[in-house]
Amino acid sequence: MPNVTHLECSLCAQRFAANQIHNLCSCGGALLVRYDLDSVRKTWTRDSLAQAKPDLWRYWPVLPVNRRESVVSLGEGMTPLIETRRLGAAVGAKDLWVKDEGLNPTGTFKARGAAVGISRARQLGATTIALPTAGNAGAAWAAYGARAGIPVVVAMPKDAPSQTQREVALYGARLHLVDGNISHAGAWVNERAAAEGWYDASTFKEPYRLEGKKTLGLEIAEQLDWRAPDVILYPTGGGVGLLGLWKAFAELRALGWLRGADDAPLPRLVVVQAAGCAPVVRAWDAGAQTTAPWEDAATVAAGLRVPSPLAGGLMLRALRETGGTALAVEDDVIRRALGDLARAGLWLSPEGAALLPALRQLRASGWLRAGERVVLLNTGSGLVYPDVEPLPPPTS
Amino acid sequence: MPNVTHLECSLCAQRFAANQIHNLCSCGGALLVRYDLDSVRKTWTRDSLAQAKPDLWRYWPVLPVNRRESVVSLGEGMTPLIETRRLGAAVGAKDLWVKDEGLNPTGTFKARGAAVGISRARQLGATTIALPTAGNAGAAWAAYGARAGIPVVVAMPKDAPSQTQREVALYGARLHLVDGNISHAGAWVNERAAAEGWYDASTFKEPYRLEGKKTLGLEIAEQLDWRAPDVILYPTGGGVGLLGLWKAFAELRALGWLRGADDAPLPRLVVVQAAGCAPVVRAWDAGAQTTAPWEDAATVAAGLRVPSPLAGGLMLRALRETGGTALAVEDDVIRRALGDLARAGLWLSPEGAALLPALRQLRASGWLRAGERVVLLNTGSGLVYPDVEPLPPPTS
Repeated sequence: MPNVTHLECSLCAQRFAANQIHNLCSCGGALLVRYDLDSVRKTWTRDSLAQAKPDLWRYWPVLPVNRRESVVSLGEGMTPLIETRRLGAAVGAKDLWVKDEGLNPTGTFKARGAAVGISRARQLGATTIALPTAGNAGAAWAAYGARAGIPVVVAMPKDAPSQTQREVALYGARLHLVDGNISHAGAWVNERAAAEGWYDASTFKEPYRLEGKKTLGLEIAEQLDWRAPDVILYPTGGGVGLLGLWKAFAELRALGWLRGADDAPLPRLVVVQAAGCAPVVRAWDAGAQTTAPWEDAATVAAGLRVPSPLAGGLMLRALRETGGTALAVEDDVIRRALGDLARAGLWLSPEGAALLPALRQLRASGWLRAGERVVLLNTGSGLVYPDVEPLPPPTS
Repeated sequence: MPNVTHLECSLCAQRFAANQIHNLCSCGGALLVRYDLDSVRKTWTRDSLAQAKPDLWRYWPVLPVNRRESVVSLGEGMTPLIETRRLGAAVGAKDLWVKDEGLNPTGTFKARGAAVGISRARQLGATTIALPTAGNAGAAWAAYGARAGIPVVVAMPKDAPSQTQREVALYGARLHLVDGNISHAGAWVNERAAAEGWYDASTFKEPYRLEGKKTLGLEIAEQLDWRAPDVILYPTGGGVGLLGLWKAFAELRALGWLRGADDAPLPRLVVVQAAGCAPVVRAWDAGAQTTAPWEDAATVAAGLRVPSPLAGGLMLRALRETGGTALAVEDDVIRRALGDLARAGLWLSPEGAALLPALRQLRASGWLRAGERVVLLNTGSGLVYPDVEPLPPPTS
């Protein structure tokens, strides 16, 4: 952690030492990793990146790991940013790009959080790592735990995708199935981790996976030659990626790496959720400061089934501060979009597919202007969801 | 095709113009793309690569596409080369690396051939592209065809993996199922392509997918800082990747890019096949000059079920010329290796998993010396094979 100065509470700004295990702040806020960016700015240049290996570790000066030898890697990051002109023209968004996180180890963007989180956990002396998951994070942490030789315990809803359950076991992790959703899995981990001395890697209780997800934003900026896109659509469950994007662009601005005026707007962030579990959208529409738990959460996009995200309030703040918005999409619409995208050569996760109809809505309402540069953040490969059947196009 | 001079028969050296559609030579030999490497050598440097985008198109001067705008890409290539010290120590191969081709679009190395093949087919005016496949190539060509907006017809054995069949349809390609194996599918394509005017993209009847696979070798060399590894293990079905590796290292030597003496040995190539379909291994053991069709081919590693590879003789030559070898592995051993690898964090395709027991055999026999640098070429992600169940470790 060449440049980490401390951890800082996202709500009350209390500071914590970075070389000890911390979960949430006493006020309940998630902790953010802070760097000495002035110092980084003096020694790190955009040009030096050109020589760096094409994985997320190229952003080493703003990552929270002490030594290169501690890195647990399976080649995660530097996924393609694919320009999709034909698809863009079809939906009236000419400058449309897909960041394809399916090309990560374990097939999803969760690999980023797991790589950085497990690298850091190892340095902090974790002997067993436990986490609740709606699905994909479990597979990723199980894989990286196996790679690191650290036992992993994954708690998952009984009705999470069966392939993911199988994958966790395949990697040799301990799989605990709960009746209920990720909130119930989280309660189980919370109780057992305390009793057993496990390292609790629950979303936002562990400050480092956010740093891994942050590299999404760093890559998008680098791939667009340090011009921030106008809008990024993000399929939102726990929201780590959303806040990672927000933090990435804030840090890039502090480093002076973004082209354009110093006060040029950062990308407007858009939360896209499934209509069957949309706590952030509901709170956004109500102008609330925080989210309330969603009852009977259900959606084909398993990664979006997070009824009570811990950082709901922080997500809403990210939307307000970037001039973003939030909207929800029905499952049938998601499944139809899956087919539309596949016929354009992109078999995405249902979470990623939800972004296409959301984009259509934003164009129809005029919120998104023609000619704006838009990035759809596809969080995983269709291969991860063999059981999700696309719907055929509507007959007209 | 800035530097392509012609196509050359791999058997009789007859030359063909590169700007026309050609399949096999009249003598039956596969055609190889030839470049003016003297000219390339004068204008292209290893240093210039450092600035290039991390996909296979970074090797543009030795790829057969005329214009950048013609490229059909989904972000293929520049997959990680993962050092696996713990696994290596466990099998007595300390300097062991896995080239993980699972991190490609559609989850397999077939994306390389499809990207280059379809980019080139579009330039040659193909309006419909047809190919037979044991499975994964079908998914890849369907995806890239969808991306390019060119219809694709895929002929596949009825008992090819069901997920792959589904994927081909998902991408909007026409799926034709045949009773039998890839040879029967090939016969159907041969007949129908001639009748319908389809562009025949069968393995080796189409000279350009080999150029895509060649980038595997270019990347391995670049990732090892232009030092060729001692040995590369390759799971062999049709053998395009094997010959691609061979061609890559030959071209790198001609360019003078490999470190070490000009006459230093190129990597010894190792053909690994499934015991249920091992025509190359059988021919190698018999000292034959070519392969004979394998009867009743059957294996859990669908990509290895190629009973009568068109370039069998050329593969045997590649083994002889590089000092390589060939060996086969039983399905149960493959399925056990799948589990061993997953518990080290690597969920590979069964084809890729076959390489681990092959490596153990080569160490046990002494063919592979301790300390030699070995690359296992994993051709795909475990996600592509949800139905292949690993076996538990043997109880002792």
